[in-house]
Amino acid sequence: MIKVGVVGATGYAGEEVIKILINHKGVEITELSAVIDKEEPISSIFPVFKGRLDLICHKPDAQKMAKNIDLVFLALPHKVSMEIAPVFLKAGKLVVDLSADYRLDPGVYKVWYGVEHKDTANLPQAVYGLPELYHDEIKKAKLIANPGCYPTSAILGVAPAAREGIIDKNSIIIDSKSGVTGAGRKPDLALSFGEVNENLKAYKVNEHQHKPEINRILSLVAGSAIDVVFTPHLIPMNRGILSTIYMKLNKKIDTKAAVDLYKKFYKGKPFVKVYDEGKLPQIKDVVFTNFCDIGVKVTGDTLIVIACIDNLKKGAAGQAVQNMNIMAGFDETEGLM
Amino acid sequence: MIKVGVVGATGYAGEEVIKILINHKGVEITELSAVIDKEEPISSIFPVFKGRLDLICHKPDAQKMAKNIDLVFLALPHKVSMEIAPVFLKAGKLVVDLSADYRLDPGVYKVWYGVEHKDTANLPQAVYGLPELYHDEIKKAKLIANPGCYPTSAILGVAPAAREGIIDKNSIIIDSKSGVTGAGRKPDLALSFGEVNENLKAYKVNEHQHKPEINRILSLVAGSAIDVVFTPHLIPMNRGILSTIYMKLNKKIDTKAAVDLYKKFYKGKPFVKVYDEGKLPQIKDVVFTNFCDIGVKVTGDTLIVIACIDNLKKGAAGQAVQNMNIMAGFDETEGLM
Amino acid sequence: MIKVGVVGATGYAGEEVIKILINHKGVEITELSAVIDKEEPISSIFPVFKGRLDLICHKPDAQKMAKNIDLVFLALPHKVSMEIAPVFLKAGKLVVDLSADYRLDPGVYKVWYGVEHKDTANLPQAVYGLPELYHDEIKKAKLIANPGCYPTSAILGVAPAAREGIIDKNSIIIDSKSGVTGAGRKPDLALSFGEVNENLKAYKVNEHQHKPEINRILSLVAGSAIDVVFTPHLIPMNRGILSTIYMKLNKKIDTKAAVDLYKKFYKGKPFVKVYDEGKLPQIKDVVFTNFCDIGVKVTGDTLIVIACIDNLKKGAAGQAVQNMNIMAGFDETEGLM
Amino acid sequence: MIKVGVVGATGYAGEEVIKILINHKGVEITELSAVIDKEEPISSIFPVFKGRLDLICHKPDAQKMAKNIDLVFLALPHKVSMEIAPVFLKAGKLVVDLSADYRLDPGVYKVWYGVEHKDTANLPQAVYGLPELYHDEIKKAKLIANPGCYPTSAILGVAPAAREGIIDKNSIIIDSKSGVTGAGRKPDLALSFGEVNENLKAYKVNEHQHKPEINRILSLVAGSAIDVVFTPHLIPMNRGILSTIYMKLNKKIDTKAAVDLYKKFYKGKPFVKVYDEGKLPQIKDVVFTNFCDIGVKVTGDTLIVIACIDNLKKGAAGQAVQNMNIMAGFDETEGLM
Repeated sequence: MIKVGVVGATGYAGEEVIKILINHKGVEITELSAVIDKEEPISSIFPVFKGRLDLICHKPDAQKMAKNIDLVFLALPHKVSMEIAPVFLKAGKLVVDLSADYRLDPGVYKVWYGVEHKDTANLPQAVYGLPELYHDEIKKAKLIANPGCYPTSAILGVAPAAREGIIDKNSIIIDSKSGVTGAGRKPDLALSFGEVNENLKAYKVNEHQHKPEINRILSLVAGSAIDVVFTPHLIPMNRGILSTIYMKLNKKIDTKAAVDLYKKFYKGKPFVKVYDEGKLPQIKDVVFTNFCDIGVKVTGDTLIVIACIDNLKKGAAGQAVQNMNIMAGFDETEGLM
Repeated sequence: MIKVGVVGATGYAGEEVIKILINHKGVEITELSAVIDKEEPISSIFPVFKGRLDLICHKPDAQKMAKNIDLVFLALPHKVSMEIAPVFLKAGKLVVDLSADYRLDPGVYKVWYGVEHKDTANLPQAVYGLPELYHDEIKKAKLIANPGCYPTSAILGVAPAAREGIIDKNSIIIDSKSGVTGAGRKPDLALSFGEVNENLKAYKVNEHQHKPEINRILSLVAGSAIDVVFTPHLIPMNRGILSTIYMKLNKKIDTKAAVDLYKKFYKGKPFVKVYDEGKLPQIKDVVFTNFCDIGVKVTGDTLIVIACIDNLKKGAAGQAVQNMNIMAGFDETEGLM
Repeated sequence: MIKVGVVGATGYAGEEVIKILINHKGVEITELSAVIDKEEPISSIFPVFKGRLDLICHKPDAQKMAKNIDLVFLALPHKVSMEIAPVFLKAGKLVVDLSADYRLDPGVYKVWYGVEHKDTANLPQAVYGLPELYHDEIKKAKLIANPGCYPTSAILGVAPAAREGIIDKNSIIIDSKSGVTGAGRKPDLALSFGEVNENLKAYKVNEHQHKPEINRILSLVAGSAIDVVFTPHLIPMNRGILSTIYMKLNKKIDTKAAVDLYKKFYKGKPFVKVYDEGKLPQIKDVVFTNFCDIGVKVTGDTLIVIACIDNLKKGAAGQAVQNMNIMAGFDETEGLM
Repeated sequence: MIKVGVVGATGYAGEEVIKILINHKGVEITELSAVIDKEEPISSIFPVFKGRLDLICHKPDAQKMAKNIDLVFLALPHKVSMEIAPVFLKAGKLVVDLSADYRLDPGVYKVWYGVEHKDTANLPQAVYGLPELYHDEIKKAKLIANPGCYPTSAILGVAPAAREGIIDKNSIIIDSKSGVTGAGRKPDLALSFGEVNENLKAYKVNEHQHKPEINRILSLVAGSAIDVVFTPHLIPMNRGILSTIYMKLNKKIDTKAAVDLYKKFYKGKPFVKVYDEGKLPQIKDVVFTNFCDIGVKVTGDTLIVIACIDNLKKGAAGQAVQNMNIMAGFDETEGLM
């Protein structure tokens, strides 16, 4: 039994981490914190926890929190994590950071997030927490850079084709559609019901901060530089990301062969399901689960991949717990089925 | 052709007023203002107006605005209107105020809105702008207190029964369900998509600030004090209010007789439709229209009335234009069909 | 470990029963059936079950199914259950029926469901499966009439007041708002997205078939005849029921006393949470859980109760499993937390 | 004043045609028909028309209807229109067909719609009713093949680039997202609220029947064969289509130049708005209007175009009226602003 804390417990990802951990057999939640006006039980903030978790949610005090945990989840906005993570690392605690702060090289980070990186000391030891690609590294990691929601669906959708070299690396187009919780829990006119409902928009077209993250990992997977075209869209639903991915094939291959290639790549990975030829996943197949469901289709010289996840589970909190499971030696699926 | 201005042009109600006026044959929109960071064409703020209205939306300057208009719509938050309305009234302009500032006696206002009324000089001349009840007064008015969205549906649903004295005046229960735009266009976590969608709540149960407004008008209609029970609910949809109203009958009457009584009461009113026995309105029957649709049913000694409106039309902007039409001598339905 | 079957596995309630049972430690799902065109794995019908439950969903054959189960859930439309339940009962199997077929006296059943009851032999032994009221009877039952979704929220909201005799029994008004899955999974224009979304309606006003069910149980609770006014509304959301209940108090009592009375009534009931004075539940507090959250408020001589449930969990599948847990001697909350 | 009929008056497109025509100064609606159980006023079917249009909606009888109209809108399912259109054409009436029946060559039609074309006699005279491309032909037409909703957004988004030859014609990828009313008004489990809400799916990936329509027109525009990749997606909203279009540029060009090219192409077209550099349209900018709003962006060698329409207005009923306006000599925008 390990002791676990959650920083940023009142956001969507923080709440989801707690929901998962409550039913996890290997952990005890011992600390919660968030930027709040008054300290009160988490069950007062989220009544759904009444009678199940009555822990006080404190204002942030990393030093103090570190004394009472073995592992911490940082469910924080970008730029905040890198100020707090060092405290836990110095105290010898394991850190799973759900923000973008440890996902990029410092130079790229500055370009996309607009500030100098403040923890270049720990950055080199951060492991990108996509277990389907980096299981062994995660096992030994002290600091996990938990992937972004868009990158999780995009990378899992492209990786088999990129690794096997069946596509033109300059042809990758990722058209992603996301539910609204992906943008976080905060007052923001652009996220208000009246603006989002019965609406639909593309935003930050090929300029979203998740693009360099996708490029970095896919380049590593492919063994040479990849630069994708990436368009995120905001969809009037709470949860879920569906990425429709278009790639030009550099060799003749039919749908069956492409499906087989994807199935082989993800063999033994408990949270990726590749659909049989002729079937495609939809959001309702994955919502509230930690699965990434993938459909594959070849049409002419185009390989089309549909990759679906729940943005708060496999795209954030679920994957974070999956990483913890691997780090702490639990079964990879514990608490996630 | 009269010249019209809109203060608060960037809110939901302000935008809706503009949408209606663009197609109104008797007016020219000459002035727009709102609390904004930079002055730009309204068509940059709402692209839907591109090519149809390219007027600059200015920062508020009532003095200056008053020189270039005959009538002004104040689509402002409560407490702000009463600071600006006197400027226009002093300049001899007609004012239609969509806020709550001129709907209540000063004492009641202070209790429910928490501040002293700042324009008690003009308050006595304000006419409650519900044309189905106060058509003649509106015709001569200089200052209209445009009704709230909940009160419009509640009062129109109860008025015939209260006037005719067929109900126990202490038995009125108004259970109202509203779309989200009724709360205005602003950053607010409680109005964000992630909080409202797939959710439903009652709020301010019998403590909502529209309760004294409903009580005041219904008491005037009935000729004696009425105190309703009023519960508003927030529904995951953009527009529309449906009020389900329960009243104890003080005499035996069947559905047909009740329907007839309601039909007679609203005879000749262009924007109220009373449904035949056995039929009930729903939101989709009124959304994007200025109509209030009413269904009536007697069951045992209970009179149930369903009253539906679009909260931004009959519940705000549409009714405001209806009032303007009456004040300015246009056909009551001009621009609203 | 008991063997369990689900008849009607492809409806919303059937799917939900399976989702719960997959994580239940005491049962093995051995049989699934539904009216389908071709027999295929349930994981082909609902991909979410891939890799977790690959059982074939058969066409209905109760005789055959009965040989391979200890307990069956009938997630069937009204009128169908009573044709199938006798087969299982005769074979000595436990039956939890989610339809309305065993909830009413045969005379009342005929009035509201339009047909003669076809299994009057077993009807007398059916126990109404609301564990908060009938725990001991459920323990000994062979046949459970699992409550309807509306009745669950309505009865739990009224029962404490009715039992304690603090209300006028002729004054109960239940204004219920339900998500769309409550109506079942079927092609129906009235349930299509284009008709339901951005809409809201009252329907079957005081004529809904759940009214006699509410009346029957509340009359038993109160010890004398109760006839409620009941208005259901259809809300554009997938899941959840919120019932706003209005009752006239027959004695002076404040909110605190009313809250205490409700808390005392539900003391020790694991799935009912009564909120502290000043707090009210909303749908998001209960959705995807088996809880009924209740808020209580006194205003003048009116007692207002807000009762929230997830219609597919506490309102159907969750309550069905709760009943099974009690019948089979499992912990009442097993699989439901 | 011309006399107009609507066949298929109870579908979403038919209802929308009526809504537009009610406010059209040049027409009188004289005939309505639909496949219905009993003939009743359209205002009983759609209460929103009460007091505004009380015409009886008849069962279909084209012969009889033809005697009382000058022009007919066929808002019918595919395969039905081609059985009815000849009756009206023979009687010398103008026909605007909203189905797909007159949009393709008979051979292609058979491949995609699965049946032989039944009116090859009139097919050759059908004019594709996209006024931005075929204004002069529409003016002289007797029979309009009103474009599909997806094709309208796709073709308007690609046409300027295809005509000017700045793109690789084999590189066009059209990723379209549509609201649910695009699929028609009918009982269908796949369109039910419980299946569509909080869900999102791609469907008929590069196999949708609108693909040959897009290919046909774009090939004509480009002057050589074009074969697009087209993926439609179903979005949980009532109305609107947003197409995100990706094309490889065959020459170096920046966003400004691309925007200028699009603006020039659509100069003088009243219903197409090309956005300035750096701005992109969203659904709420066009919903309930007849506009197609287009945003253009160049990134590397990729031209990205976002084209938005309301699927029931510019994608169906609005465009149909726009075609009527041109055919009948009205102002092109009459009834549509």
